[in-house]
Order: sequence, then C-alpha cells, then structure tokens
Amino acid sequence: MSAPFPIRPRLLLGPGPSPVHDRILQAMARPTVGHLDPQFLQVMDDVNARLRQVFSTAHPLTFPVSGTGSAGQEAALANLLEPGDTAIIGINGVFGGRLAEMARRMGAEVVAVEETWGHIIDPTKLVQAHRDHPHARLVAVVHAETSTGVRQPLDELGSYLAGTETLYVVDAVTSLGGIPVEVDAHRIDVCYSGTQKCLGVPPGLSPMTFSPRALERVRSRKHPCQSWYLDASLLADYVGESSERKYHHTAPINMMYALHEGLVMIEEEGLEARYARHAEVGARLQGELEARGFTLFAEEGHRLPELTSAALPGGVAEAPLRKALLERYDIEVGGGLGPAKGKIWRIGLMGAGATHDSVDRLLAAVDDLLD
Amino acid sequence: MSAPFPIRPRLLLGPGPSPVHDRILQAMARPTVGHLDPQFLQVMDDVNARLRQVFSTAHPLTFPVSGTGSAGQEAALANLLEPGDTAIIGINGVFGGRLAEMARRMGAEVVAVEETWGHIIDPTKLVQAHRDHPHARLVAVVHAETSTGVRQPLDELGSYLAGTETLYVVDAVTSLGGIPVEVDAHRIDVCYSGTQKCLGVPPGLSPMTFSPRALERVRSRKHPCQSWYLDASLLADYVGESSERKYHHTAPINMMYALHEGLVMIEEEGLEARYARHAEVGARLQGELEARGFTLFAEEGHRLPELTSAALPGGVAEAPLRKALLERYDIEVGGGLGPAKGKIWRIGLMGAGATHDSVDRLLAAVDDLLD
Repeated sequence: MSAPFPIRPRLLLGPGPSPVHDRILQAMARPTVGHLDPQFLQVMDDVNARLRQVFSTAHPLTFPVSGTGSAGQEAALANLLEPGDTAIIGINGVFGGRLAEMARRMGAEVVAVEETWGHIIDPTKLVQAHRDHPHARLVAVVHAETSTGVRQPLDELGSYLAGTETLYVVDAVTSLGGIPVEVDAHRIDVCYSGTQKCLGVPPGLSPMTFSPRALERVRSRKHPCQSWYLDASLLADYVGESSERKYHHTAPINMMYALHEGLVMIEEEGLEARYARHAEVGARLQGELEARGFTLFAEEGHRLPELTSAALPGGVAEAPLRKALLERYDIEVGGGLGPAKGKIWRIGLMGAGATHDSVDRLLAAVDDLLD
Repeated sequence: MSAPFPIRPRLLLGPGPSPVHDRILQAMARPTVGHLDPQFLQVMDDVNARLRQVFSTAHPLTFPVSGTGSAGQEAALANLLEPGDTAIIGINGVFGGRLAEMARRMGAEVVAVEETWGHIIDPTKLVQAHRDHPHARLVAVVHAETSTGVRQPLDELGSYLAGTETLYVVDAVTSLGGIPVEVDAHRIDVCYSGTQKCLGVPPGLSPMTFSPRALERVRSRKHPCQSWYLDASLLADYVGESSERKYHHTAPINMMYALHEGLVMIEEEGLEARYARHAEVGARLQGELEARGFTLFAEEGHRLPELTSAALPGGVAEAPLRKALLERYDIEVGGGLGPAKGKIWRIGLMGAGATHDSVDRLLAAVDDLLD
C-alpha cells in the first residue's frame, strides 16, 4: 500500500479556501454511507437546523446545494428568474458582475447598479432602481465582496423590498460565519454561501436558504427551472422535512460530514464570540498593514474584517512577493482581480485562520520580505 | 474536543454510493490547500491524465465537474443544446428519462426513443430516429441504466454518428471503472460519470470528457451556455493545459484528493483486472440469486455485472426485507424506481464492493431472512 501523494500544508490566508481544522478533516474521513440511509438523513436534518442558526432564519427550506459557492449563486438566480424577467443587480466587484452574467445567460433583463470597486453601493440607488423597475423579479447584492473586501449594508434595502413583490437575494459567500448574516431581520428571500470561507470547511457545498415566498415563486413558475440539478422545488422533497424523502441526486456524503462538524464547532464557540474573533483580528491586521505603508483598498467604515484588500507600499510589485510568501513561508494570500489585478493583495482571516497567530506569521514574513 | 457524531459503517451494495477504501478516505483528509496552489494544479493535471486512461480517450478536455453525477449529466446537455435544438434520447429507465427532462427544460425538442424497462434500446431504432431527424444536435444514451441493470451497446451508434454532424453523448455514471468505457473507439463526443459508483470514491465529483468537435460546438454557440457554473468553455481555461490557469470557481479540493487516490488504486489493480473482477462477482451473484428463486429483471445477454436488478422469490414484499437487511445486517441494497418500485432490488457490486466476500455476506443474510 503506497502512501497518498504528499501535500505540503499551507497557512491559507487568501480569499478562500480557509484553513480547515483537523477535527473537520477527520470527521470527513468517516465511512461513506448511502444518501437515503436513516443515519445520513439525520446528519442532513441536523446540518439544516444548524444552518438556520448561522443564517439567523426560520426558513424551513435551508440546506447545502451539492456544489461550490458559485453553484449556490447559480441556484439562487436559476430558481427565481424566467426569460424576460428583470433582475436588478448591484455590481461593485467580480461577484456582482458574475451575478449579472449568470442572470443574462438565463435570459433575464439585467438592470446593473454599478459602483466603483472598493466602495459600497448606496442603498438609495438600489431602491431608486427598483422604483424605476417596480416589476423586477429580484434585487441581488453581494454582502461581502471577495474581490474588494467591501461590506455592503443590507437592512435598508430589505425593509423596502419586503413591502413589494420583488425578491431580495444576498450573496453571503464570504460573510456567513464570520460577520452577522441576518436573513430574517433583514428580510432576505434567498441567501447563499460557501463552506470554504468563514465556515472553515473544505470547498464543495453551498449552504442556502429560501423564504416561503421565494419557494412559492419557484413553485408557481410558468416554465420549470432551467436547471434540474439546482431546482429548489425538487430539492425540497429530498432535503425537506416531509416524511418521505424523495431521491433526487446522490448528495456528497463525506462533505456533509465535514460541514456538520464545522457547524458543531461554530456552536461550541458561539456565533457572537466567533464574530468578535473575526472583528478583532481583522482590525488588528488592517492597522498593522497601514503602519507598514500598505494602502487599504476598501473604503473606511465598510471594511470586512475577514477579507482585507490592500496595495503594497511604495509600488512594490505584488506577484513576486506573493509567490515568495507561498514558496518560502508556506503562506497563501490572494492577488487582485479585474481592475485590481497586479495592484493589491487580498488577505483572508477566515474561520480557523482568524487568529492572532495567523496575523503574527503573516506580518513576520512580510517584514522579512520587504526588508 | 468532542468526537464527531458516530456513523455506523454499512456494506454498501446498493446502486451507489459504493464502499470507499480507507486509503481513499485518508487521502481525502489531507490538508486543504488553495485551488490555484501549484500543488493542487499538479493533482488536477494528474487526475485528468488518469481519467483519460479510464475513459480510454485522448480528448484533451477531460476533468471532473464540481458536482455529483447529475451535474455531469446536466453539463453534457447544457453545453451542447440551445433552445430549439433537437435532442434524440434513448429512454429505457430513470436516467434516460432524466436526460429528456433536462433537455426539455433547456428548451430543446426531445425525440424520445423508448423501450420497455429491462431491455436495451435497439441501436437500429436510434439510427432510424437520426435518419428521421438528421439535423439533431445530439443523440444521448445511458450505457449502464442504474434503474434496471441493463447494459446498452455503444459501438454501432457511435460509428454511424461519427459520419454525421450530430454529437454522441453517453451516460457512463454506473459503468466507468467497472466495465470498459471506450470513448475513442466508440466515437463518443461527451461522456460523463460519477465518482461514487465503480470508481469507489465518495460522491461529489462528475468526471467527464469532451471531444474536440464537442468543444468546438460549445465555443461556436449562438448564445452562451445557460449555466455559467457548468460552461465547458470557461472550465477549459481552468482545468486545461494552458500555461495560465484562469480562476473560474473554487474546486472541491479534498474531493479531488479522494478521486486522485481512487485513480491511483485503479492503476495499481489494472483496468483489465478490474473489469474481470466486476464481471466475475456479478455473474456469480446473478447465478446465486436465480438459484434462490429470484427473477433477474434485465434481459439476458445485456446484464451489467456491477448492478443486478432482481425480483424477490415467491412474491415476498421487498421493502421490509430490505429494511431488515440494513438494520440487522448493516447491508444496504436499493429498491426499484418508477414502474419497478416495490418490485425489485437493485444490488450493486461496484468498486471496492465487487468482491466474493460481499456476495457471501449478502447471500448469507438473504438466506437468513428468507428462511
């Protein structure tokens, strides 16, 4: 019996995946069982209940989609949109742009509300776009823009849309488990995330939640969802609370074990303590970087603690330094995307990576390299 | 630190997932690294090269889609079909029916070539359907119908379609790694599978391959693929052999470790030896079941060794016996689907489950229960 190929561990301080605790890796390596085994259905029910807590929601239809965060993004739009529908989409980074791209591919008319990268989208501009397009099917925004490190405020738009027929879609890929995601309080209809960011679980699942009115919308479509794989009305019969579980597809069993363990660890820590931990180390990193001459990319007052974007001091080229950080110190950080390519680093302090030790190791390496 | 929730191991002899060797579980539990880490790109390249061997193909675009087998099924159709295209689909079980359902959702006109469950679809009927609809975009068949245990012959249709503009799509979810899948020899354009059947890896990835003419078709679409997540023209830039790997989505890192280890184990055993093992234990099980009064569901001469469907002897109700098998013997087998619901068992001898020991354990339990 040969050993598996060697993997050199890295300190994952990029925009995701984040470091995975050994408890989660070991839980994932437990024996595979069937997707209709009562043991597995119990795991699934428990995962769904725990996800409701992390999403701060009572929505019955809350479950992980069998794909990575982008699959959740596609599921949100594919379930709600029919060809010809209008989708109002806030774009101030890569992931808002991707929402627009996906919606267009589904045949929707996209009303883009754009803002300069690094800035939030003024909620009044989104409200105004809805007043201009009152029959829009949905308004979608990105809570934590992974390409810029900006934290979009969610409450004002949610209160406004709750009084309309338009559904509120929020991308929480990089926020869930790291900063509060208040699905019910903010009147969010569909919210999705990924396991590999602040939940601290390997990539492969996309937790999401549908409000009753969103599910009603899915069930009253004129044409069925273009994606059979992501059709929430079919998935509801498998993941839901009904007595007979209808087979839909074979769920990624071992990934569900991993997510379950990650959610148990979140309960043990407590959500408030977890948010405080992310807030504390994120603020410290941002202060330390500024003290070293880095320029923070996201506007002040709207910076994510779990994802810091910053330009290097004195015009130092970022790519060779980032490569050296990986090769010589085994620390991964991300580069910029789109207009920020070559200009910034994106540093994640997410899940198990959100510690003072991570900050210490990163700063020591950076000081070495910039010396 | 609490222990992860307990999972009672089962002998997985259902239609999938199949038993997963501990080597694969341990390989999966190795440290998560980034999806653009050179170490991971090397794993991905090696997985893709090994998949080409198992698919018996030289197609450069061969990789695992980040979802379960149904995601591969959807990817095959979503990439090739545009609204208004004609899709000829062979239906002799659940998975052919699902292909038709998916194609319709994408706006295609489906020409269904139907056959009674348990029988193969006569290739001449598929050829005739193409003569009647020569401008069809694709013809799709299921190689190993998991709902019936029937093995569809592939070569005749492939030779015929190679002389036309129509693409040949083959569902190899339950065949890859258990019986020969000859993508190049049978002139298959798009073929997809799942990890959790004869490859012996947990569910979560769908290996697939695109011929150059299939990829050319994707790149020359009038409208982009409705699914951004599954768009092969975008995926090619991430999984392909180009020098710069373009970020598309975050691949399920640890699942790729598992698939890699599964493919290493296949190489160690040798494909021919693996096929012989599946053939031998499958034939033995089928003989032993008939000797006990079971009635095999799939027509003689076209039975899959890795998936046996059979009605229980003497009108015994299948569900209570199947439940007892799971609860008292920790052995999972599957029930029938669709018209075969309540009438048959579906017994998988796949991957690590394709052993005489599995057959012994199952038969001993069945003899006990029927006693």
